[in-house]
Amino acid sequence: ELSVDEPSAVLKAANVWGALRGKRNSTMEFYSKGRKQTDISDFPRFAHRGILLDSSRHFLPLKVILANLEAMAMNKFNVFHWHIVDDPSFPYMSRTFPDLSQKGAYHPFTHVYTPSDVKMVIEFARMRGIRVIPEFDTPGHTQSWGNGQLNLLTPCYSGSSPSGTFGPVNPILNSSYDFMTQFFKEISTVFPDAYIHLGGDEVDFSCWKSNPDIKKFMVQQGFGTDYSKLESFYIQRLLDIVAATKKGYMVWQEVFDNGVKLKDDTVVEVWIGNKMEEELQNVTGAGFTTILSAPWYLDYISYGQDWQRYYKVEPLNFPGTDAQKKLVIGGEACLWGEYVDATNLTPRLWPRASAVAERLWSDKSVTDVGNAYKRLVQHRCRMVKRGIPAEPLFVGHCRQEYMGL
Amino acid sequence: ELSVDEPSAVLKAANVWGALRGKRNSTMEFYSKGRKQTDISDFPRFAHRGILLDSSRHFLPLKVILANLEAMAMNKFNVFHWHIVDDPSFPYMSRTFPDLSQKGAYHPFTHVYTPSDVKMVIEFARMRGIRVIPEFDTPGHTQSWGNGQLNLLTPCYSGSSPSGTFGPVNPILNSSYDFMTQFFKEISTVFPDAYIHLGGDEVDFSCWKSNPDIKKFMVQQGFGTDYSKLESFYIQRLLDIVAATKKGYMVWQEVFDNGVKLKDDTVVEVWIGNKMEEELQNVTGAGFTTILSAPWYLDYISYGQDWQRYYKVEPLNFPGTDAQKKLVIGGEACLWGEYVDATNLTPRLWPRASAVAERLWSDKSVTDVGNAYKRLVQHRCRMVKRGIPAEPLFVGHCRQEYMGL
Repeated sequence: ELSVDEPSAVLKAANVWGALRGKRNSTMEFYSKGRKQTDISDFPRFAHRGILLDSSRHFLPLKVILANLEAMAMNKFNVFHWHIVDDPSFPYMSRTFPDLSQKGAYHPFTHVYTPSDVKMVIEFARMRGIRVIPEFDTPGHTQSWGNGQLNLLTPCYSGSSPSGTFGPVNPILNSSYDFMTQFFKEISTVFPDAYIHLGGDEVDFSCWKSNPDIKKFMVQQGFGTDYSKLESFYIQRLLDIVAATKKGYMVWQEVFDNGVKLKDDTVVEVWIGNKMEEELQNVTGAGFTTILSAPWYLDYISYGQDWQRYYKVEPLNFPGTDAQKKLVIGGEACLWGEYVDATNLTPRLWPRASAVAERLWSDKSVTDVGNAYKRLVQHRCRMVKRGIPAEPLFVGHCRQEYMGL
Repeated sequence: ELSVDEPSAVLKAANVWGALRGKRNSTMEFYSKGRKQTDISDFPRFAHRGILLDSSRHFLPLKVILANLEAMAMNKFNVFHWHIVDDPSFPYMSRTFPDLSQKGAYHPFTHVYTPSDVKMVIEFARMRGIRVIPEFDTPGHTQSWGNGQLNLLTPCYSGSSPSGTFGPVNPILNSSYDFMTQFFKEISTVFPDAYIHLGGDEVDFSCWKSNPDIKKFMVQQGFGTDYSKLESFYIQRLLDIVAATKKGYMVWQEVFDNGVKLKDDTVVEVWIGNKMEEELQNVTGAGFTTILSAPWYLDYISYGQDWQRYYKVEPLNFPGTDAQKKLVIGGEACLWGEYVDATNLTPRLWPRASAVAERLWSDKSVTDVGNAYKRLVQHRCRMVKRGIPAEPLFVGHCRQEYMGL
């Protein structure tokens, strides 16, 4: 709550994060209007308002991440979902397993996040009221892990002999779980947030199916030919390992879909576009908290003002009880990195993500696209003025741009 | 022709532009391969290899234009088609009519191209073997002209009285032609190239139709209700005015389609996507030289590697004689400015335009997309190394990027 009666202004908030956000609000409110007397009472509709950035498909230099944390703060996002490693590269420098980045990063010195880089990101974010939730996605999306950790990935077979390629994490070896135990013990101390994202999406079964040892294990366990049971077997053990570190976890929707037993406080991230209402209904019906990212995959680009599509999403528009709706704690705009690096990330993300930010902050009743356009144009100009190269929404210019006079 | 036999190399070219391009080739060839002995004989398939940038919908700071001229040179483009003014703003500072930019630019001091800015662009381009062809598009796309030049635009009517809005250039007043005579006299001296682009696209007839004076004129001239005849009437007089300055002109395809009498050396630019083969057939069938931009509207964006689509175009794939094919002198990649300004122009243009560059330079037989991908990835890294933030084609990194070690 902010009360202004010049020359004094009083800002009240329930906690420090509210005060931070309130300061931000007052900047936004007074920037262009120069009000002398007003009262503002504002609070977010959803608690979890995130941005996913992917630093594996392309390495993102530290300063790009910091600049975007600043932009997130300007848009009142409060979660940085750091999809830090994936198939193409492993830029996270682990103290316990230095070979992971030494052999798995694009370059072992320039294309890595050192312990002090990670600390910098976390602290820079914290000062802006942003949580950092790292994602270490397994058992799929792990090709780069295999470069630095022998026997972690499943050897794929071509006929009766190994083909030389590797698949997901090998779920039948105890050594895989020993590794994960040590690895996530480190992660749980490096990242202070109460949650870790464990991935679990898009596991490709073809390699597992080719491997005779895996096939034997399937028979022993009585899994038949249902490889999603094997996936669940792995995930279940992984979840227990991470739970032992006293961290909560987030997972992509497949983990829930496959019937893995989840802790009560698990957050399930809904990302698959078709049947997303059904998925929200199912996840919340089973009593789990959930966040929505399916309609906000900002890596998909198209001609024109696609921000309107993002803006028009109503996250609670699915069949369910009031209790179910309360389990939707927010959402995330995802900018996957296939076509994005330091050259184009920031203008591609902003102000398109700002539309998601407003949807997640403002009341359900705030839906007028024309009004939102006017606010976004102004807000985009504020970002440009602060040095964030947010791309234009349409024809025009910012009054303060190219200030030379 | 380049012959290398270390420690000496001989570069032969028919003219200075060939030599410039040859120097560029040798840089490209030797950058990664470190050859000690080789012979290169290379020449462009098409003479006109252009990029259109639009500085009206968003003002493009001088340094953005210069940076992109440098990128054009790296891609062996040799024409900068400068769509300098349009409806939204008039950044060209005219000596003869200073009010055009004073009242028609987004800002009269910061969002204009001064005479010395224009000279700088022309000279910077010339040193890189690039012609600058300015476009002053009339009679449509001229809203911003009306701010600084009274009575130039047609007053639109609502019923029997003026509505206060304005349409295309008023084609029935002698004052319009007096203005154009003076204006293009200036343009013909400011821009040294032998050609000026006169536009002529997308003329909206609704305002003309509403105006009683125009209607009377239509009757007097015997145009019936065919407003394309009125458009042609205007264009015909404009072309005569510009021809008197001894300049050649380029026009968008509508001017040809409407049957305007064109000088023999007119270049007709084909930009409308559907029926483009038919248009090429008609234009060349009538004996006019033509350039193709229809398949290369780079302002249209989509997810993934759209460069492949640009690359696969075969400009001569239309029904016609050999003599007709020879009249296709090249093409242009167009980056219209509705959604593009200094924040995102360069990574959106490169390396997507590089695919067009190769199509316009290389032999017709060079069509393998897989090979082109490998070349483009390398070439994009060269651009990044030279400080041009060309976006990534796909997952990966440049060996030399973020050089810190």
